[in-house]
Amino acid sequence: MNFLLFCFSLLLFLFNLIYSQEIDQRLYDLSKKIVRVSLIDNKGYKWLEELCKIGPRLSGSENSYKAIYWARDKMKEAGFDSVWLQPVMVPNWKRGKIEKATIIESKKYKGRNLNITAFGGSIGTGENGISGEVIPVRDFNELKLKGDLVKGKIVFFDRPLDTGEVEPFAGYGGAVDQRSRGAIEAAKYGAIGVIVRSITTRHDNVPHTGVMYYVDSLPKIPSAAIGYQDADFLKEALDEEPDLKINFVLSCKTYEDTLSYNVIGEIRGSEFPDEIIVVGGHFDSWDKGCGAHDDGAGSVQSMEVLDLFKRLNFQPKRTIRCVLFIDEEQRQRGAIEYSRYILEKNQKHIAAIESDRGGFTPRGFYVDTDSLTLNYLQSFLPYLNLAKIDWIRKGGSGVDISKIKNARALFGYVPDSQRYMDFHHSDNDIFEAVHPRELQLGSAAMAILTLLISELGL
Amino acid sequence: MNFLLFCFSLLLFLFNLIYSQEIDQRLYDLSKKIVRVSLIDNKGYKWLEELCKIGPRLSGSENSYKAIYWARDKMKEAGFDSVWLQPVMVPNWKRGKIEKATIIESKKYKGRNLNITAFGGSIGTGENGISGEVIPVRDFNELKLKGDLVKGKIVFFDRPLDTGEVEPFAGYGGAVDQRSRGAIEAAKYGAIGVIVRSITTRHDNVPHTGVMYYVDSLPKIPSAAIGYQDADFLKEALDEEPDLKINFVLSCKTYEDTLSYNVIGEIRGSEFPDEIIVVGGHFDSWDKGCGAHDDGAGSVQSMEVLDLFKRLNFQPKRTIRCVLFIDEEQRQRGAIEYSRYILEKNQKHIAAIESDRGGFTPRGFYVDTDSLTLNYLQSFLPYLNLAKIDWIRKGGSGVDISKIKNARALFGYVPDSQRYMDFHHSDNDIFEAVHPRELQLGSAAMAILTLLISELGL
Repeated sequence: MNFLLFCFSLLLFLFNLIYSQEIDQRLYDLSKKIVRVSLIDNKGYKWLEELCKIGPRLSGSENSYKAIYWARDKMKEAGFDSVWLQPVMVPNWKRGKIEKATIIESKKYKGRNLNITAFGGSIGTGENGISGEVIPVRDFNELKLKGDLVKGKIVFFDRPLDTGEVEPFAGYGGAVDQRSRGAIEAAKYGAIGVIVRSITTRHDNVPHTGVMYYVDSLPKIPSAAIGYQDADFLKEALDEEPDLKINFVLSCKTYEDTLSYNVIGEIRGSEFPDEIIVVGGHFDSWDKGCGAHDDGAGSVQSMEVLDLFKRLNFQPKRTIRCVLFIDEEQRQRGAIEYSRYILEKNQKHIAAIESDRGGFTPRGFYVDTDSLTLNYLQSFLPYLNLAKIDWIRKGGSGVDISKIKNARALFGYVPDSQRYMDFHHSDNDIFEAVHPRELQLGSAAMAILTLLISELGL
Repeated sequence: MNFLLFCFSLLLFLFNLIYSQEIDQRLYDLSKKIVRVSLIDNKGYKWLEELCKIGPRLSGSENSYKAIYWARDKMKEAGFDSVWLQPVMVPNWKRGKIEKATIIESKKYKGRNLNITAFGGSIGTGENGISGEVIPVRDFNELKLKGDLVKGKIVFFDRPLDTGEVEPFAGYGGAVDQRSRGAIEAAKYGAIGVIVRSITTRHDNVPHTGVMYYVDSLPKIPSAAIGYQDADFLKEALDEEPDLKINFVLSCKTYEDTLSYNVIGEIRGSEFPDEIIVVGGHFDSWDKGCGAHDDGAGSVQSMEVLDLFKRLNFQPKRTIRCVLFIDEEQRQRGAIEYSRYILEKNQKHIAAIESDRGGFTPRGFYVDTDSLTLNYLQSFLPYLNLAKIDWIRKGGSGVDISKIKNARALFGYVPDSQRYMDFHHSDNDIFEAVHPRELQLGSAAMAILTLLISELGL
């Protein structure tokens, strides 16, 4: 055993000495009840089914408003103390009806269609579309090396998600630059359009969308995802015929920003009403599937935390606030507006919990906090174990709550994510992709963490 | 902090002091490679697809022999040092072609069919079947209370798996007596047959089979599972018309025991060839679906542990033996024969690992060992974490390897089990129910544990 390990072990022991506390039987029993009621009632799951029937919830879309009013009404029905809509201006990009790609010049493949879908924020192509040769590259480095060869062509970013990464989010992180910045980088070399191999762990032919960006200093060129199988096909076809040409048409368009809302509901604390604990997810989704995992799951779980307290007739000491943030997928305007609002109102947030990694079986919580608080939080594990939470570790919380300043601890709920990228941002992300027990254990895990922070403080 | 907790914490610290060891960089790097190669190659998953195409593998069935030869050939192809079939006599129950239940007397429901399937080991009904009134009971206690009312009737055991249990296996354990001993208990009171609400977490209408027993001192009566939805229906119908009658026909039959085989393959250890580490699962399944999770998954994972070593060109110090046990589902004859064989040959087994809880994302390992060894094993966690193993805890290993005597440690691989009972022993247990990443991480977790035991000893 080396010296550092020795010191660490000794420190851990001393911390345990100071911070370990006996189990609070009342809270332990309540935690057990939370798990049981969550699994038996399946209320979050039933809510998710209703929500998915409304359809996907792209910011600014007609469905998004239906969903917002639906959530508000559900929170009111559940008897939360206050429920309100928080106005916020959101981006207003619309896909349009036409998304089509075709091989137009080729000895062998002329006329063959390719499965594509525009990335969120992309300009349209005009009704005749973009036509040109296709130049495949693995990354921005290869793009740079090809330099002048890119001019006038369509860049095909072909680097798949690395399935060898044990964390699908790490694989995603290693591939997503092609989607988010591909059009910017390709434009530097005079490309006329971009298509990107879908970032997915399921090798079907469903294209996966997601946000992309432009900069004002460069020409804006259209950018779209291509299905994984068609990306395979295109790669092989280009090996055979490097000068084949494709045409693709996108009728998407960005409109003026439009008014939308965060949906907020809260139960006022009985002892410390001014100390707020936020539980939240994002309520917008992409206009694919129905955004069941991303982030319908996190939204209904957040609603259910409060609803579980209501069902168990439990009155928390601190104020528990559910926030369904709008526009996470594009500009995080909902999160920005919420953080502005609480600063303006000088509202004290002691903690926030975000669920935006899918509705799968609980594994742990990431937490953004100091080391002392982290150590104290380990004493919550015997309760959280009841809902299959095995650990609390330092790590990123979530895109939306990370904008909340001055909270003692920001938590990211971490479920098992092995299946997540199969569904993410695609037509695969439907209600049927969510398993009731997995979703409900997430609700329970979040509710127990909320309960402990509310009753024991931080 | 109370005194006990203090002592425990101090002890933990001292144990850590003694047992903690620095990471072995070579083994750590090899563990990383195991995860990566497993996830990228998907070899176990491809094997499972082949295996599932053969069909289900009921002990003594034609398919089971095809599967046995398939596994032997795969192990030979993979270049294991020895591959052999170990003969063992197995039960030979066959379902037969007819499984049918119909309401034959009822004002409202006459002629309606019910989805049933015989439990493994049940006698048949004869071609005219069993006809009678149906008496619903929740448990053996209620059965006893009903006493004489049961005589001449069909007992309908109606207690569902308790979905409020966080562990589906606990829910299963709380319901399975109806299946395994229902015919014995019902026969005590003169019942003529038994039907049992399917033990499942998915509330569809697919009946779930499984083993049932008789005792010689009581009449043997036929016993079958009924689909969950039809159980709901029947319960309501009986509330309306308690004297309705059903007829059910089962053409299943138990034949003479027949010869089958455990499939065994091994890589000989370079330094301690006489110290054996077993990795295994059971190779028989029920004749429903294709036994993909139960236990095709554990079988291909066990084969893949050795194959991963081969692929990585790694020669273990100790002998690694893959054992695919036949007849776990009925009488564990394969496990009994294997344990007899190693006693006879005086073969030293230092550890065994069983995978028979489905092909889902790794969570931990249960281990049957002494406390000192358990504490030592905790030092494996940094390596096992690479494959999403979060803990090693005392617990039951597995039905098959638990018969191996004198091993230092017997491990049960524990994946996330929330979806398991949806598929278990039913037509839902098909290849498509297994996710490649989840299965492959299981192979990797088992391979890393095997690696560490082989190289570091126990």
